[in-house]
Amino acid sequence: MEAGIFNSSSILTQDELKKIAAYKAVEHVESGMILGLGSGSTVKHAVDRIGELLQMGKLKNIIGITTSENTHQRAMSVGIPLSDLDSHPVLDLAIDGADEVDPHLNLVKGRCGSLLREKMVEGACRKFVVIVDESKLVDHLGGSGLAMPVEVVPFCWKFTAKTLQDLFSEAGCVAKLKTCEEESGEPFVTDNGNYIVDLYFKKDIGDLRAASEAILQVAGVVEHGMFLNMATTVIVARELGITVKNK
Amino acid sequence: MEAGIFNSSSILTQDELKKIAAYKAVEHVESGMILGLGSGSTVKHAVDRIGELLQMGKLKNIIGITTSENTHQRAMSVGIPLSDLDSHPVLDLAIDGADEVDPHLNLVKGRCGSLLREKMVEGACRKFVVIVDESKLVDHLGGSGLAMPVEVVPFCWKFTAKTLQDLFSEAGCVAKLKTCEEESGEPFVTDNGNYIVDLYFKKDIGDLRAASEAILQVAGVVEHGMFLNMATTVIVARELGITVKNK
Repeated sequence: MEAGIFNSSSILTQDELKKIAAYKAVEHVESGMILGLGSGSTVKHAVDRIGELLQMGKLKNIIGITTSENTHQRAMSVGIPLSDLDSHPVLDLAIDGADEVDPHLNLVKGRCGSLLREKMVEGACRKFVVIVDESKLVDHLGGSGLAMPVEVVPFCWKFTAKTLQDLFSEAGCVAKLKTCEEESGEPFVTDNGNYIVDLYFKKDIGDLRAASEAILQVAGVVEHGMFLNMATTVIVARELGITVKNK
Repeated sequence: MEAGIFNSSSILTQDELKKIAAYKAVEHVESGMILGLGSGSTVKHAVDRIGELLQMGKLKNIIGITTSENTHQRAMSVGIPLSDLDSHPVLDLAIDGADEVDPHLNLVKGRCGSLLREKMVEGACRKFVVIVDESKLVDHLGGSGLAMPVEVVPFCWKFTAKTLQDLFSEAGCVAKLKTCEEESGEPFVTDNGNYIVDLYFKKDIGDLRAASEAILQVAGVVEHGMFLNMATTVIVARELGITVKNK
Protein backbone atom coordinates (compact mmCIF):
# COMPACT_ATOMS: atom_id res chain seq x y z
CA MET A 1 0.00 0.00 0.00
CA GLU A 2 1.39 3.39 -0.88
CA ALA A 3 -0.14 6.78 -0.10
CA GLY A 4 1.16 10.17 -1.19
CA ILE A 5 0.93 13.14 1.12
CA PHE A 6 1.87 16.22 -0.82
CA ASN A 7 2.52 19.60 0.58
CA SER A 8 0.92 22.68 -0.91
CA SER A 9 4.07 24.81 -0.87
CA SER A 10 6.43 24.03 -3.72
CA ILE A 11 9.78 23.72 -1.95
CA LEU A 12 10.60 22.64 1.59
CA THR A 13 14.01 22.55 3.19
CA GLN A 14 15.54 19.14 3.89
CA ASP A 15 15.06 19.69 7.61
CA GLU A 16 11.41 20.69 7.24
CA LEU A 17 10.81 17.51 5.25
CA LYS A 18 12.50 15.42 7.93
CA LYS A 19 10.32 17.08 10.53
CA ILE A 20 7.11 16.34 8.61
CA ALA A 21 8.19 12.71 8.18
CA ALA A 22 9.09 12.44 11.86
CA TYR A 23 5.75 13.90 12.96
CA LYS A 24 3.98 11.44 10.65
CA ALA A 25 5.87 8.59 12.33
CA VAL A 26 4.90 9.84 15.78
CA GLU A 27 1.21 9.56 14.78
CA HIS A 28 1.74 5.82 15.35
CA VAL A 29 2.63 6.41 19.00
CA GLU A 30 -0.09 5.81 21.61
CA SER A 31 -0.17 6.26 25.38
CA GLY A 32 1.20 3.33 27.36
CA MET A 33 3.58 2.19 24.63
CA ILE A 34 7.10 0.84 25.06
CA LEU A 35 8.98 2.62 22.29
CA GLY A 36 12.24 1.83 20.51
CA LEU A 37 14.05 5.03 19.60
CA GLY A 38 16.68 4.85 16.88
CA SER A 39 19.34 7.33 15.84
CA GLY A 40 19.99 10.15 13.40
CA SER A 41 18.73 13.63 12.59
CA THR A 42 15.19 12.58 11.61
CA VAL A 43 14.68 10.46 14.71
CA LYS A 44 15.77 13.49 16.75
CA HIS A 45 12.66 15.32 15.48
CA ALA A 46 10.51 12.33 16.45
CA VAL A 47 12.01 12.28 19.95
CA ASP A 48 11.38 16.00 20.35
CA ARG A 49 7.78 15.58 19.18
CA ILE A 50 7.14 12.72 21.62
CA GLY A 51 8.56 14.86 24.44
CA GLU A 52 6.25 17.70 23.38
CA LEU A 53 3.16 15.46 23.31
CA LEU A 54 4.07 14.07 26.76
CA GLN A 55 4.38 17.59 28.14
CA MET A 56 1.06 18.59 26.56
CA GLY A 57 -0.54 15.56 28.20
CA LYS A 58 -1.58 14.15 24.81
CA LEU A 59 0.63 11.13 25.43
CA LYS A 60 1.04 9.33 28.76
CA ASN A 61 3.05 6.45 30.22
CA ILE A 62 5.58 6.17 27.41
CA ILE A 63 8.80 4.26 28.06
CA GLY A 64 11.65 4.65 25.60
CA ILE A 65 14.44 2.20 24.80
CA THR A 66 17.26 3.80 22.84
CA THR A 67 19.80 2.34 20.43
CA SER A 68 22.48 5.02 20.87
CA GLU A 69 23.96 7.27 23.50
CA ASN A 70 23.00 10.42 21.54
CA THR A 71 19.33 9.49 21.43
CA HIS A 72 19.49 8.46 25.08
CA GLN A 73 20.65 11.96 26.05
CA ARG A 74 18.11 13.65 23.78
CA ALA A 75 15.19 11.56 25.07
CA MET A 76 16.20 12.23 28.68
CA SER A 77 16.38 15.96 28.00
CA VAL A 78 12.81 16.09 26.61
CA GLY A 79 11.44 14.05 29.50
CA ILE A 80 10.88 10.57 28.00
CA PRO A 81 11.34 7.92 30.72
CA LEU A 82 13.91 5.35 29.59
CA SER A 83 14.49 1.67 30.27
CA ASP A 84 16.18 -1.30 28.56
CA LEU A 85 15.42 -4.58 26.81
CA ASP A 86 16.16 -6.66 29.89
CA SER A 87 13.26 -4.94 31.69
CA HIS A 88 11.01 -4.68 28.62
CA PRO A 89 11.70 -7.56 26.24
CA VAL A 90 8.70 -6.73 24.02
CA LEU A 91 8.29 -3.28 22.46
CA ASP A 92 5.15 -1.88 20.88
CA LEU A 93 6.78 0.33 18.29
CA ALA A 94 10.19 1.46 17.10
CA ILE A 95 11.04 4.53 15.03
CA ASP A 96 14.36 4.73 13.21
CA GLY A 97 16.08 5.74 9.98
CA ALA A 98 17.75 3.43 7.42
CA ASP A 99 20.60 3.56 4.91
CA GLU A 100 18.76 1.65 2.19
CA VAL A 101 15.15 0.51 1.67
CA ASP A 102 14.19 -1.98 -1.05
CA PRO A 103 10.69 -2.33 -2.60
CA HIS A 104 9.81 -5.07 -0.06
CA LEU A 105 10.77 -2.77 2.86
CA ASN A 106 13.95 -4.72 3.60
CA LEU A 107 16.62 -2.40 4.97
CA VAL A 108 20.32 -1.82 5.26
CA LYS A 109 21.10 -0.09 8.53
CA GLY A 110 23.99 0.55 10.84
CA ARG A 111 26.38 2.59 8.70
CA CYS A 112 26.94 4.71 11.80
CA GLY A 113 28.14 1.55 13.54
CA SER A 114 25.40 0.64 16.03
CA LEU A 115 23.66 -2.03 14.00
CA LEU A 116 23.65 -4.66 16.71
CA ARG A 117 21.76 -2.58 19.29
CA GLU A 118 19.39 -1.42 16.58
CA LYS A 119 18.70 -4.99 15.50
CA MET A 120 18.14 -6.15 19.07
CA VAL A 121 15.71 -3.34 19.86
CA GLU A 122 13.92 -3.30 16.54
CA GLY A 123 13.74 -7.07 16.40
CA ALA A 124 11.79 -6.97 19.66
CA CYS A 125 9.10 -4.59 18.30
CA ARG A 126 5.57 -5.35 17.18
CA LYS A 127 5.67 -2.42 14.72
CA PHE A 128 8.68 -0.76 13.18
CA VAL A 129 8.30 2.61 11.45
CA VAL A 130 11.24 3.70 9.30
CA ILE A 131 11.84 7.28 8.16
CA VAL A 132 14.08 7.94 5.16
CA ASP A 133 14.57 10.47 2.41
CA GLU A 134 14.08 9.49 -1.20
CA SER A 135 17.81 8.93 -1.82
CA LYS A 136 17.67 5.82 0.39
CA LEU A 137 15.28 3.93 -1.89
CA VAL A 138 17.05 1.17 -3.86
CA ASP A 139 15.98 -1.54 -6.30
CA HIS A 140 17.86 -4.14 -4.25
CA LEU A 141 19.89 -4.04 -1.03
CA GLY A 142 23.49 -3.08 -1.72
CA GLY A 143 22.25 -1.20 -4.79
CA SER A 144 23.35 2.21 -3.51
CA GLY A 145 26.97 1.12 -3.93
CA LEU A 146 27.52 2.21 -0.33
CA ALA A 147 28.59 0.01 2.56
CA MET A 148 26.62 -2.90 3.98
CA PRO A 149 28.17 -3.16 7.45
CA VAL A 150 28.97 -6.44 9.19
CA GLU A 151 30.04 -6.43 12.85
CA VAL A 152 32.88 -8.90 13.46
CA VAL A 153 35.09 -9.86 16.40
CA PRO A 154 38.57 -8.31 16.15
CA PHE A 155 40.30 -11.74 16.40
CA CYS A 156 41.56 -12.61 12.89
CA TRP A 157 39.25 -10.02 11.33
CA LYS A 158 41.19 -10.16 8.05
CA PHE A 159 40.32 -13.82 7.73
CA THR A 160 36.67 -13.05 8.44
CA ALA A 161 36.68 -10.17 5.91
CA LYS A 162 38.23 -12.43 3.28
CA THR A 163 35.65 -15.14 3.98
CA LEU A 164 32.82 -12.60 3.59
CA GLN A 165 34.25 -11.22 0.37
CA ASP A 166 34.61 -14.72 -1.08
CA LEU A 167 31.02 -15.52 -0.10
CA PHE A 168 29.78 -12.83 -2.50
CA SER A 169 32.49 -13.02 -5.17
CA GLU A 170 29.82 -13.42 -7.87
CA ALA A 171 28.33 -10.08 -6.83
CA GLY A 172 31.77 -8.45 -7.13
CA CYS A 173 31.98 -7.96 -3.38
CA VAL A 174 34.79 -5.93 -1.84
CA ALA A 175 35.21 -6.08 1.96
CA LYS A 176 36.88 -3.20 3.79
CA LEU A 177 37.53 -2.57 7.46
CA LYS A 178 35.65 0.47 8.71
CA THR A 179 38.13 2.98 10.09
CA CYS A 180 37.61 5.93 12.42
CA GLU A 181 38.97 8.55 10.08
CA GLU A 182 40.45 8.14 6.64
CA GLU A 183 43.66 9.74 7.92
CA SER A 184 44.50 7.63 10.94
CA GLY A 185 43.40 4.25 9.61
CA GLU A 186 42.58 3.06 13.13
CA PRO A 187 39.76 0.48 13.17
CA PHE A 188 36.37 1.81 14.17
CA VAL A 189 35.35 0.03 17.38
CA THR A 190 31.65 -0.63 18.11
CA ASP A 191 29.92 -0.20 21.47
CA ASN A 192 30.48 -3.94 21.88
CA GLY A 193 34.22 -3.75 21.31
CA ASN A 194 34.01 -5.24 17.81
CA TYR A 195 35.09 -4.11 14.34
CA ILE A 196 32.94 -3.35 11.31
CA VAL A 197 33.71 -4.88 7.91
CA ASP A 198 31.93 -2.92 5.17
CA LEU A 199 30.78 -4.93 2.17
CA TYR A 200 30.46 -3.20 -1.21
CA PHE A 201 28.62 -5.00 -4.00
CA LYS A 202 28.84 -4.43 -7.75
CA LYS A 203 25.78 -6.59 -8.49
CA ASP A 204 22.55 -7.72 -6.84
CA ILE A 205 23.29 -10.38 -4.20
CA GLY A 206 19.99 -12.14 -4.94
CA ASP A 207 18.21 -14.14 -2.23
CA LEU A 208 18.55 -11.98 0.89
CA ARG A 209 17.46 -14.66 3.35
CA ALA A 210 20.17 -16.98 2.00
CA ALA A 211 22.72 -14.16 2.10
CA SER A 212 21.80 -13.40 5.71
CA GLU A 213 22.19 -17.04 6.77
CA ALA A 214 25.49 -17.37 4.94
CA ILE A 215 26.90 -14.27 6.64
CA LEU A 216 25.71 -15.32 10.11
CA GLN A 217 27.27 -18.75 9.65
CA VAL A 218 30.73 -17.24 9.25
CA ALA A 219 32.48 -17.76 12.59
CA GLY A 220 33.71 -14.34 13.64
CA VAL A 221 30.57 -12.53 12.45
CA VAL A 222 28.47 -10.98 15.21
CA GLU A 223 25.69 -9.40 13.13
CA HIS A 224 25.03 -7.81 9.74
CA GLY A 225 23.24 -4.66 8.66
CA MET A 226 20.44 -6.26 6.63
CA PHE A 227 17.11 -5.87 8.42
CA LEU A 228 14.89 -8.30 6.58
CA ASN A 229 11.15 -8.41 6.97
CA MET A 230 11.29 -6.14 10.03
CA ALA A 231 9.94 -2.75 8.90
CA THR A 232 6.15 -2.50 8.95
CA THR A 233 5.92 1.09 7.67
CA VAL A 234 8.35 3.25 5.71
CA ILE A 235 7.82 7.00 5.56
CA VAL A 236 9.69 8.55 2.64
CA ALA A 237 10.47 12.26 2.65
CA ARG A 238 10.40 13.47 -0.95
CA GLU A 239 11.07 16.86 -2.42
CA LEU A 240 7.42 17.82 -2.46
CA GLY A 241 6.11 15.96 0.55
CA ILE A 242 6.05 12.51 2.06
CA THR A 243 4.99 9.04 0.95
CA VAL A 244 3.94 6.24 3.30
CA LYS A 245 4.53 2.59 2.43
CA ASN A 246 2.97 -0.10 4.57
CA LYS A 247 3.83 -3.78 4.65
CA MET B 1 33.43 -46.69 9.04
CA GLU B 2 34.43 -47.81 12.49
CA ALA B 3 37.59 -49.67 13.43
CA GLY B 4 38.56 -50.98 16.84
CA ILE B 5 42.16 -50.86 17.95
CA PHE B 6 42.48 -52.85 21.11
CA ASN B 7 45.42 -52.94 23.39
CA SER B 8 46.85 -56.23 24.60
CA SER B 9 47.18 -55.15 28.24
CA SER B 10 43.94 -55.28 30.16
CA ILE B 11 43.91 -51.91 31.95
CA LEU B 12 45.42 -48.57 30.93
CA THR B 13 45.40 -45.35 32.91
CA GLN B 14 43.25 -42.50 31.61
CA ASP B 15 46.37 -40.60 30.65
CA GLU B 16 47.89 -43.55 28.79
CA LEU B 17 44.67 -43.88 26.82
CA LYS B 18 44.70 -40.17 25.97
CA LYS B 19 48.28 -40.53 24.81
CA ILE B 20 47.45 -43.48 22.55
CA ALA B 21 44.51 -41.55 21.07
CA ALA B 22 46.67 -38.46 20.57
CA TYR B 23 49.41 -40.45 18.84
CA LYS B 24 46.80 -42.02 16.61
CA ALA B 25 45.58 -38.52 15.67
CA VAL B 26 49.13 -37.40 14.88
CA GLU B 27 49.39 -40.23 12.33
CA HIS B 28 47.26 -37.94 10.13
CA VAL B 29 49.95 -35.24 10.18
CA GLU B 30 52.27 -34.98 7.17
CA SER B 31 55.25 -32.76 6.43
CA GLY B 32 54.38 -29.33 4.99
CA MET B 33 50.97 -29.17 6.68
CA ILE B 34 49.32 -26.12 8.21
CA LEU B 35 47.90 -27.52 11.45
CA GLY B 36 45.10 -26.32 13.71
CA LEU B 37 45.91 -27.16 17.33
CA GLY B 38 43.03 -27.23 19.81
CA SER B 39 43.04 -27.31 23.58
CA GLY B 40 42.90 -29.70 26.50
CA SER B 41 44.93 -32.48 28.05
CA THR B 42 44.67 -34.88 25.10
CA VAL B 43 45.69 -32.27 22.56
CA LYS B 44 48.69 -31.55 24.77
CA HIS B 45 49.93 -35.09 24.06
CA ALA B 46 49.41 -34.52 20.34
CA VAL B 47 51.37 -31.27 20.46
CA ASP B 48 54.22 -33.00 22.31
CA ARG B 49 54.24 -35.82 19.77
CA ILE B 50 54.37 -33.41 16.81
CA GLY B 51 57.27 -31.59 18.48
CA GLU B 52 59.04 -34.94 18.97
CA LEU B 53 58.56 -35.94 15.31
CA LEU B 54 59.84 -32.53 14.16
CA GLN B 55 62.93 -32.94 16.32
CA MET B 56 63.50 -36.48 15.00
CA GLY B 57 63.25 -35.10 11.47
CA LYS B 58 60.29 -37.37 10.70
CA LEU B 59 58.11 -34.29 10.14
CA LYS B 60 59.20 -31.08 8.40
CA ASN B 61 57.79 -27.64 7.57
CA ILE B 62 54.85 -27.79 9.95
CA ILE B 63 53.07 -24.54 10.87
CA GLY B 64 50.67 -24.56 13.81
CA ILE B 65 47.67 -22.30 14.42
CA THR B 66 46.42 -22.51 17.99
CA THR B 67 42.99 -21.87 19.49
CA SER B 68 44.15 -21.05 23.02
CA GLU B 69 46.97 -19.37 24.85
CA ASN B 70 47.88 -22.59 26.71
CA THR B 71 48.35 -24.55 23.51
CA HIS B 72 50.24 -21.63 22.01
CA GLN B 73 52.77 -21.77 24.87
CA ARG B 74 53.04 -25.55 24.73
CA ALA B 75 53.54 -25.63 20.96
CA MET B 76 56.21 -22.92 21.18
CA SER B 77 58.03 -24.84 23.89
CA VAL B 78 58.25 -28.03 21.80
CA GLY B 79 59.45 -26.13 18.73
CA ILE B 80 56.36 -25.98 16.47
CA PRO B 81 56.48 -22.78 14.35
CA LEU B 82 53.23 -20.82 14.83
CA SER B 83 51.21 -18.45 12.69
CA ASP B 84 47.60 -17.26 12.42
CA LEU B 85 44.52 -17.49 10.21
CA ASP B 86 45.15 -14.12 8.59
CA SER B 87 48.42 -15.48 7.15
CA HIS B 88 47.11 -19.00 6.52
CA PRO B 89 43.38 -18.91 5.75
CA VAL B 90 43.29 -22.58 4.72
CA LEU B 91 44.49 -25.33 7.07
CA ASP B 92 45.24 -28.91 6.14
CA LEU B 93 44.28 -30.54 9.41
CA ALA B 94 43.08 -29.66 12.90
CA ILE B 95 43.30 -31.80 16.04
CA ASP B 96 41.08 -31.01 19.02
CA GLY B 97 38.88 -32.48 21.73
CA ALA B 98 35.09 -32.14 22.10
CA ASP B 99 32.47 -32.06 24.87
CA GLU B 100 29.91 -34.18 23.01
CA VAL B 101 29.97 -36.29 19.84
CA ASP B 102 26.78 -37.61 18.23
CA PRO B 103 26.55 -40.65 15.90
CA HIS B 104 26.92 -38.37 12.83
CA LEU B 105 30.13 -36.86 14.25
CA ASN B 106 28.43 -33.55 15.06
CA LEU B 107 30.02 -31.97 18.13
CA VAL B 108 29.41 -29.71 21.09
CA LYS B 109 32.56 -27.80 21.93
CA GLY B 110 33.70 -24.76 23.82
CA ARG B 111 32.67 -25.55 27.39
CA CYS B 112 36.02 -24.07 28.38
CA GLY B 113 34.90 -20.84 26.72
CA SER B 114 36.99 -20.53 23.54
CA LEU B 115 34.40 -21.81 21.07
CA LEU B 116 34.69 -18.91 18.65
CA ARG B 117 38.42 -19.29 18.00
CA GLU B 118 37.99 -23.05 17.75
CA LYS B 119 35.20 -22.66 15.23
CA MET B 120 37.17 -20.17 13.15
CA VAL B 121 40.27 -22.37 13.03
CA GLU B 122 38.50 -25.70 12.64
CA GLY B 123 36.08 -24.28 10.09
CA ALA B 124 39.07 -23.41 7.91
CA CYS B 125 40.44 -26.99 7.90
CA ARG B 126 40.28 -29.59 5.16
CA LYS B 127 40.38 -32.39 7.77
CA PHE B 128 39.38 -32.23 11.42
CA VAL B 129 40.39 -35.05 13.76
CA VAL B 130 38.63 -35.08 17.13
CA ILE B 131 39.90 -36.97 20.17
CA VAL B 132 37.49 -37.83 22.99
CA ASP B 133 36.98 -40.39 25.70
CA GLU B 134 33.94 -42.66 25.65
CA SER B 135 31.98 -40.49 28.09
CA LYS B 136 31.62 -37.80 25.40
CA LEU B 137 29.56 -39.99 23.06
CA VAL B 138 25.86 -39.01 23.05
CA ASP B 139 22.77 -40.11 21.16
CA HIS B 140 21.98 -36.50 20.28
CA LEU B 141 23.69 -33.16 20.95
CA GLY B 142 22.65 -31.76 24.32
CA GLY B 143 22.06 -35.35 25.45
CA SER B 144 24.76 -35.27 28.13
CA GLY B 145 22.63 -32.83 30.11
CA LEU B 146 25.67 -30.57 30.28
CA ALA B 147 26.00 -27.08 28.86
CA MET B 148 25.81 -26.17 25.20
CA PRO B 149 27.61 -22.81 25.23
CA VAL B 150 26.53 -19.75 23.21
CA GLU B 151 28.78 -16.69 23.05
CA VAL B 152 26.76 -13.46 23.30
CA VAL B 153 27.54 -9.74 23.50
CA PRO B 154 27.23 -8.39 27.05
CA PHE B 155 24.73 -5.68 25.97
CA CYS B 156 21.28 -6.81 27.19
CA TRP B 157 22.53 -10.39 27.64
CA LYS B 158 19.50 -11.25 29.78
CA PHE B 159 17.25 -10.45 26.86
CA THR B 160 19.40 -12.61 24.58
CA ALA B 161 19.41 -15.47 27.12
CA LYS B 162 15.62 -15.28 27.42
CA THR B 163 15.23 -15.29 23.63
CA LEU B 164 17.46 -18.39 23.39
CA GLN B 165 15.58 -20.18 26.15
CA ASP B 166 12.23 -19.43 24.48
CA LEU B 167 13.57 -20.70 21.15
CA PHE B 168 13.95 -24.18 22.65
CA SER B 169 11.08 -24.17 25.13
CA GLU B 170 9.77 -27.44 23.66
CA ALA B 171 13.07 -29.11 24.51
CA GLY B 172 12.78 -27.85 28.11
CA CYS B 173 15.69 -25.47 27.61
CA VAL B 174 17.17 -23.57 30.54
CA ALA B 175 19.62 -20.74 29.76
CA LYS B 176 22.21 -19.73 32.36
CA LEU B 177 24.99 -17.16 32.29
CA LYS B 178 28.38 -18.83 32.63
CA THR B 179 30.14 -17.43 35.68
CA CYS B 180 33.81 -17.45 36.62
CA GLU B 181 33.38 -19.24 39.90
CA GLU B 182 30.23 -20.45 41.58
CA GLU B 183 31.07 -18.27 44.56
CA SER B 184 31.61 -14.86 43.01
CA GLY B 185 28.89 -15.00 40.36
CA GLU B 186 30.90 -12.69 38.10
CA PRO B 187 30.22 -13.33 34.40
CA PHE B 188 32.86 -15.38 32.60
CA VAL B 189 34.36 -13.14 29.89
CA THR B 190 35.66 -14.70 26.66
CA ASP B 191 38.88 -13.77 24.83
CA ASN B 192 36.64 -11.57 22.67
CA GLY B 193 35.16 -9.68 25.62
CA ASN B 194 31.81 -11.46 25.39
CA TYR B 195 29.69 -13.54 27.77
CA ILE B 196 28.70 -17.19 27.52
CA VAL B 197 25.08 -18.30 27.94
CA ASP B 198 24.95 -22.03 28.65
CA LEU B 199 21.92 -23.87 27.30
CA TYR B 200 20.71 -27.03 29.06
CA PHE B 201 18.19 -29.25 27.30
CA LYS B 202 15.80 -31.79 28.79
CA LYS B 203 14.91 -33.27 25.40
CA ASP B 204 16.40 -33.72 21.94
CA ILE B 205 16.36 -30.41 20.04
CA GLY B 206 15.79 -32.22 16.74
CA ASP B 207 17.02 -30.69 13.47
CA LEU B 208 20.48 -29.36 14.32
CA ARG B 209 20.88 -27.28 11.17
CA ALA B 210 17.61 -25.49 11.91
CA ALA B 211 18.64 -25.03 15.54
CA SER B 212 21.97 -23.56 14.46
CA GLU B 213 20.33 -21.08 12.10
CA ALA B 214 17.74 -20.07 14.69
CA ILE B 215 20.46 -19.39 17.29
CA LEU B 216 22.65 -17.40 14.88
CA GLN B 217 19.67 -15.28 13.86
CA VAL B 218 19.23 -14.01 17.41
CA ALA B 219 20.73 -10.51 17.45
CA GLY B 220 23.23 -10.52 20.30
CA VAL B 221 24.51 -14.02 19.55
CA VAL B 222 28.11 -14.20 18.36
CA GLU B 223 28.51 -17.96 17.95
CA HIS B 224 27.31 -21.28 19.37
CA GLY B 225 29.11 -24.44 20.43
CA MET B 226 27.54 -26.86 17.93
CA PHE B 227 30.12 -27.93 15.35
CA LEU B 228 27.98 -29.48 12.65
CA ASN B 229 29.37 -31.53 9.80
CA MET B 230 32.92 -30.39 10.58
CA ALA B 231 34.69 -33.41 12.13
CA THR B 232 36.09 -35.85 9.57
CA THR B 233 37.52 -38.36 12.05
CA VAL B 234 36.71 -39.05 15.70
CA ILE B 235 39.15 -41.07 17.80
CA VAL B 236 37.46 -42.47 20.90
CA ALA B 237 39.59 -43.57 23.86
CA ARG B 238 37.80 -46.49 25.53
CA GLU B 239 38.72 -48.46 28.59
CA LEU B 240 40.47 -51.18 26.62
CA GLY B 241 41.80 -49.24 23.68
CA ILE B 242 40.70 -46.83 21.01
CA THR B 243 38.07 -46.73 18.29
CA VAL B 244 38.30 -44.65 15.12
CA LYS B 245 35.18 -43.31 13.39
CA ASN B 246 35.49 -41.73 9.96
CA LYS B 247 32.95 -39.57 8.18
